[in-house]
Amino acid sequence: MKLVASNASAAFDPRTEADRLFTEIRRATADPTGVGVSRESYGDGEQKAIEIVRRHAEATGLATDFDAAANLVVTLSGRDTDKPFIAIGSHLDSVPQGGNYDGAAGVVAGLLTLMRLKEERVVPPRNIKVIAMRGEESAWYGKTCVGSHALFGGLTEQDLMLTHRSGHGTLGDAMKARGADVARIARGDTLLDPGSIAAYLELHIEQGPVMAARGFPTAIVTGIRGNVRHREIHCIGEAAHSGAVPRWLRRDAVFAVAELVTHLDEHWESLQQRGLDLVVTVGIMGTNPAEHAMSRVPGEVSFSFEVRSQSSDTLEAFYHLMRTECRAIGDKRKVDFRFDRRLDTRPARMDNAWIERLLRLSKRLGLPTETLPSGAGHDAAIFANEGVPSAMIFIRNEHGSHNPHEAMALDDFLKGADLLYHAVIEAP
Amino acid sequence: MKLVASNASAAFDPRTEADRLFTEIRRATADPTGVGVSRESYGDGEQKAIEIVRRHAEATGLATDFDAAANLVVTLSGRDTDKPFIAIGSHLDSVPQGGNYDGAAGVVAGLLTLMRLKEERVVPPRNIKVIAMRGEESAWYGKTCVGSHALFGGLTEQDLMLTHRSGHGTLGDAMKARGADVARIARGDTLLDPGSIAAYLELHIEQGPVMAARGFPTAIVTGIRGNVRHREIHCIGEAAHSGAVPRWLRRDAVFAVAELVTHLDEHWESLQQRGLDLVVTVGIMGTNPAEHAMSRVPGEVSFSFEVRSQSSDTLEAFYHLMRTECRAIGDKRKVDFRFDRRLDTRPARMDNAWIERLLRLSKRLGLPTETLPSGAGHDAAIFANEGVPSAMIFIRNEHGSHNPHEAMALDDFLKGADLLYHAVIEAP
Repeated sequence: MKLVASNASAAFDPRTEADRLFTEIRRATADPTGVGVSRESYGDGEQKAIEIVRRHAEATGLATDFDAAANLVVTLSGRDTDKPFIAIGSHLDSVPQGGNYDGAAGVVAGLLTLMRLKEERVVPPRNIKVIAMRGEESAWYGKTCVGSHALFGGLTEQDLMLTHRSGHGTLGDAMKARGADVARIARGDTLLDPGSIAAYLELHIEQGPVMAARGFPTAIVTGIRGNVRHREIHCIGEAAHSGAVPRWLRRDAVFAVAELVTHLDEHWESLQQRGLDLVVTVGIMGTNPAEHAMSRVPGEVSFSFEVRSQSSDTLEAFYHLMRTECRAIGDKRKVDFRFDRRLDTRPARMDNAWIERLLRLSKRLGLPTETLPSGAGHDAAIFANEGVPSAMIFIRNEHGSHNPHEAMALDDFLKGADLLYHAVIEAP
Repeated sequence: MKLVASNASAAFDPRTEADRLFTEIRRATADPTGVGVSRESYGDGEQKAIEIVRRHAEATGLATDFDAAANLVVTLSGRDTDKPFIAIGSHLDSVPQGGNYDGAAGVVAGLLTLMRLKEERVVPPRNIKVIAMRGEESAWYGKTCVGSHALFGGLTEQDLMLTHRSGHGTLGDAMKARGADVARIARGDTLLDPGSIAAYLELHIEQGPVMAARGFPTAIVTGIRGNVRHREIHCIGEAAHSGAVPRWLRRDAVFAVAELVTHLDEHWESLQQRGLDLVVTVGIMGTNPAEHAMSRVPGEVSFSFEVRSQSSDTLEAFYHLMRTECRAIGDKRKVDFRFDRRLDTRPARMDNAWIERLLRLSKRLGLPTETLPSGAGHDAAIFANEGVPSAMIFIRNEHGSHNPHEAMALDDFLKGADLLYHAVIEAP
């Protein structure tokens, strides 16, 4: 494919187009409280974002379609449509009251790449497809990367039965409502042949503070952490009058869970000091509002659990440590810990040849030649674990993500989108 | 007053009457979920219980009225109505999904005493009044003993602004709706002259396991623990993507509160081993449902705090320990602890002459001559701290209280009610 200079066309201005898309998506999916955006997995906000991307793609004359998992697919046809295609993917859902760029940046960068190729009348050797994935965030149904897992038979019937965070409705019902073929998904059918994909490329904001601290507008990802999670663990003690039960007879669920969390934090600290890659989070915790009171021994606490690592061994070891702590604290404090289903996401390695290619291109474009592991999970991990050569470009972003304060500079985004564009036209 | 044998009248059967009252109150105030009873302070369930007691009192020919705090007052007139009266009190509200006897047992025992005196045509030397108090449980508005505090100018305007546990409506509005004179209460007026009360007597179920363990159907209370409370302390950190923020940059509200609670538990254990009377409870705790997620560093946790002791010094010392821990953990973990208003209930001593009188009567009636401190707070503490000679009879009860499993045997209750009856007729 011939190399086209990034300013070849005067008519197409990536900055104007990106700004327009981000603004439109942000406005359409603002949380009703005014705090951040809320694009529910297989829900309304996500759907609005998908419709905006589709409308802009079609206005440019790009073909759009939905795959069997209801992900939006925008295609720029190449010369040989039978050749494995290049996928540019990311997701359009967000956490509740999240930021506008987490996920959407990758989809917008993909769309800009196709628009620019089209504007420049480039016919690539193979099809280029932007896949705007649904359901990447676990915040809504407790399962991450639903839209990409579904493509490769990675969802189970149990996954489809996961309930919405509100307690009402299942993931399967939400997917069905958006047109996903839940019968095939429940059977674990392969909806997209990994062999039909030459490469999977994803641009995403960095969700940690490293690039901002070190002054990198872009960086290349080496690997993606996996995780083991429980959406809801129940600690069951016994509710009682706070003033009337002596200490030794208490079965206090709050003291028990506080001790567990404190121990997990201590284990995390000491394992990290020994050099292990590890992150531990209890993001959700609460006494039972139906029975709790200020003057009542708390009889029940529910909480979530998450451990992340680039190493499957570390994940497994920490998970067993957690279960052991629960048994010990349960015995000591006369409480029971009850576990819902364990959810697993495998760690993933990015493709070495693609990492090298992106670093060469970065050097040529005057961008940093820096690599970074991803602490957060991404759809790219699902594609990589299916054997698809996968790569990721990170964009500098302040204040982290999964909160409304994320701050990506449009300049940085355009540098990353330019790198993605060059990666696509230099793809083997 | 002449002593009347307890079986003087064949027509009046305390067992039948007690059973009828308890059953009627339980049925009328059952929680809609079927779990326990819910008699909201100055709310519907409490009102239903009050109406039932009033109806039974009036059917017996007893005079009923409401005081300026909207408590129900049932009066049996004595020979000299200008003499200070004897008050028999307890409360008719309950915690959400609580037990039927916590509070109601004392009101029913008082009513049985008046009924029995009336049935036996005893005209006592002074008025005997049963005060069925409202709003004793802090579970609804965070303030305990509202109905008795209001009588003695013990509520502030701030107290009246306390919001309902649902977040909707204030205590003042609820009191006004039941007919309380909130203007006078807000001014701190004395609605009931403590000098007009010769004695305050309260029968209550034991809310701990001591009497069941030691086989006492009844016991006499020596003193009542006070407490210091916060309804809601906020720990504010920063929400962020769980996988992407390194440990040293986390501002994790769950880890912070878990550490605080674990330290408080350790302090409690060590202070108790040094012989201090102390109970520590964090009955309510939760991450913010509007922003929490399994894969998000929790940016906010709210929780309640309660410390109980028979010693004001111990209360104060532990409270300052808690504040010191919050400062230290706040510095270490880069979180802020924000406190709502501190709520205080003073410890109280029961009247020695009345304790002696009740022990003498217990001996005569073949009941145990045992004394016990009360771990829980009671309206009796408010009367005692106003200088009213006050006393309490505890009734054996299994499974504690503030839960739907409390179990008081009717036989034990009738023994206690008989003791109360004799206490009233032997009052000086």
